[in-house]
Amino acid sequence: MASPIQENLVSKNAEYASKFTKGDLALPPAKHYLVLTCMDARIDPAAAFGIDLGDAHVIRNAGGSARDALRSIIISQQLLGTKEIILIKHTGCGMLTFSNEDAHGLVKKNLGPSAAAEIATLDFLPIKNLDDAVKGDVEYLKRSAAVPEDVIISGWVYEVETGKVRRIV
Amino acid sequence: MASPIQENLVSKNAEYASKFTKGDLALPPAKHYLVLTCMDARIDPAAAFGIDLGDAHVIRNAGGSARDALRSIIISQQLLGTKEIILIKHTGCGMLTFSNEDAHGLVKKNLGPSAAAEIATLDFLPIKNLDDAVKGDVEYLKRSAAVPEDVIISGWVYEVETGKVRRIV
Repeated sequence: MASPIQENLVSKNAEYASKFTKGDLALPPAKHYLVLTCMDARIDPAAAFGIDLGDAHVIRNAGGSARDALRSIIISQQLLGTKEIILIKHTGCGMLTFSNEDAHGLVKKNLGPSAAAEIATLDFLPIKNLDDAVKGDVEYLKRSAAVPEDVIISGWVYEVETGKVRRIV
Repeated sequence: MASPIQENLVSKNAEYASKFTKGDLALPPAKHYLVLTCMDARIDPAAAFGIDLGDAHVIRNAGGSARDALRSIIISQQLLGTKEIILIKHTGCGMLTFSNEDAHGLVKKNLGPSAAAEIATLDFLPIKNLDDAVKGDVEYLKRSAAVPEDVIISGWVYEVETGKVRRIV
């Protein structure tokens, strides 16, 4: 039994695969960079940020958090040779709308005490100010001993209302 | 001074924004699901998995790891109302090519002892067998008290050679 979402995946993927011509791309990103952005449904990184298939790693998590992405960033750089990080957070981000206390409270209320205990030490990494969060994450990456000093790092905001990016740092 | 990668972002984004018409989408994903997949450069989730703008959260990390994504998954479900998880790993994944020892060794060799110390406890979450890793991550999510029991979870493999997905579990 497939759900409607699973049926959509199967039918749309069959269309995609029927026209697919890029089966011989190499594993390491051809343009040696990575994009780190939010999981937000209103962002299509390939289209909005001009990433051709095979060119860049794309890391996405709630808020486009650099801390949360550190494992993936190290792998991207040390094992797959990327040399530049484009960090893009966005307007209207859900991470601006709650605190750690709110999130832990919701889990306890909705899922019960065993769920709350399972994630008791989890930092949900909410943010208070968008531009400051971009600057803070870029600083975090620049300070991290696990990110080489010659890696180029820039920080941006994507506007979900206009489709435009603007550079912060 | 903009790097060539940054110039590409600015010019391609200007093109995208000039035709952008979806500035009024809501924050919660319209189709109430999330896709979790790898950061691999050869995957374009929107195109390959049939995700229209605004429909689904897309979480991406090295290997499409469910453990690594747990923070984002909880936020997606508890704060933004998603009810289904589509987990997609892929053929030719870089995570099949090294061990934790390899990765820690590379960091120490390339970045020195202070970097190695900074990430000494980091699990890089490499995988040994693709289909088993999909099954294992689906099991992990089903067992997690932080993921409600009524969430629909399926596990897939995307073939970077053909553009096709196949269901594992």
